[in-house]
Amino acid sequence: MQLLKDRIRKDGIVREGGVLKVDSFLNHQMDIELFEKIGKEFRRRFEGEEINKILTIEASGIGIACIVAQYFHVPVVFAKKTKTKNIAGDVYTSRVESYTHGRVYDIIVSKDFLGPEDKVLLIDDFLANGKALEGLAQLVQDAGATLVGAGIVIEKGFQRGGDVIREKGIHLESLAIVESMDPTTGEVVFREN
Amino acid sequence: MQLLKDRIRKDGIVREGGVLKVDSFLNHQMDIELFEKIGKEFRRRFEGEEINKILTIEASGIGIACIVAQYFHVPVVFAKKTKTKNIAGDVYTSRVESYTHGRVYDIIVSKDFLGPEDKVLLIDDFLANGKALEGLAQLVQDAGATLVGAGIVIEKGFQRGGDVIREKGIHLESLAIVESMDPTTGEVVFREN
Repeated sequence: MQLLKDRIRKDGIVREGGVLKVDSFLNHQMDIELFEKIGKEFRRRFEGEEINKILTIEASGIGIACIVAQYFHVPVVFAKKTKTKNIAGDVYTSRVESYTHGRVYDIIVSKDFLGPEDKVLLIDDFLANGKALEGLAQLVQDAGATLVGAGIVIEKGFQRGGDVIREKGIHLESLAIVESMDPTTGEVVFREN
Repeated sequence: MQLLKDRIRKDGIVREGGVLKVDSFLNHQMDIELFEKIGKEFRRRFEGEEINKILTIEASGIGIACIVAQYFHVPVVFAKKTKTKNIAGDVYTSRVESYTHGRVYDIIVSKDFLGPEDKVLLIDDFLANGKALEGLAQLVQDAGATLVGAGIVIEKGFQRGGDVIREKGIHLESLAIVESMDPTTGEVVFREN
């Protein structure tokens, strides 16, 4: 998605350690008009697929997932990272290792909102080591739901996650795949389509 | 907002201890078509106000804020509850006591995304003791930005938060104000408009 790549080149900040800061438009401040274009693009890429639910993970996936959902006319469910007292009853649980936070946590979804009748599109802002996406895919499997595919805004192509997900046969669509980044020059190289 | 009240009566679950579960459509599974109607209603209630940014708090405020933002054509910034290594540089910080989670935490916003030029509408799903909203208002004040008002989906009118916020002179619009709830019968009584 050229518009997204241009925006990453313009406003993304490359830091040491494979960190790409895009918090001015994607995951702290959120450019909703850009999200609408992202939603249209995912709609195009999953054209013809039967999808009745979008599953994402808190926090930064939620905004994108909600705007994307408008183009699929489906509800969004977000997996929560901690168990609050407002979630009663049974939940599906999966363990995730966070690259950003450098810690391990559980993600949960209420069994009320994910079941065998669901045809699920996963949406998230980043794909790096793929652990969050694997955790979400596990929740879908545990629920007996159908995993239609996964839509990612930015994939770090220099990490293992994308390969792992594709090797599992999951239909993965990443709108921008970063092949390499240079923290000294700030240059970002994207994978060719 | 009658549609919202009807939905709360239909799908909300009243629990002991003043808990109203609306996670089937508001804050775990999210009904995006309802969010669109909520966005239109906030647009109407803040008609004529100059707003150039929406500020919310992770996690359950984000989805609503993003859909609402489409009706104001402004970006969304969400306050984060923990400091991740992806947030570098200076942040505004405020301390919040969570009713849902029963704990105290800091909320932060990068100074890059909130400043004196911003005219801010706060958006959140719930208002109970008002601590989260007070924390957000504090961030706006610390940034030297203008607080235009606050839009809340469900206010618990039997808790102190709404009064506290109104006494501060903040333009608060709550789409449904719950006056009382009965966990035995499941009845929800709303404040008259």
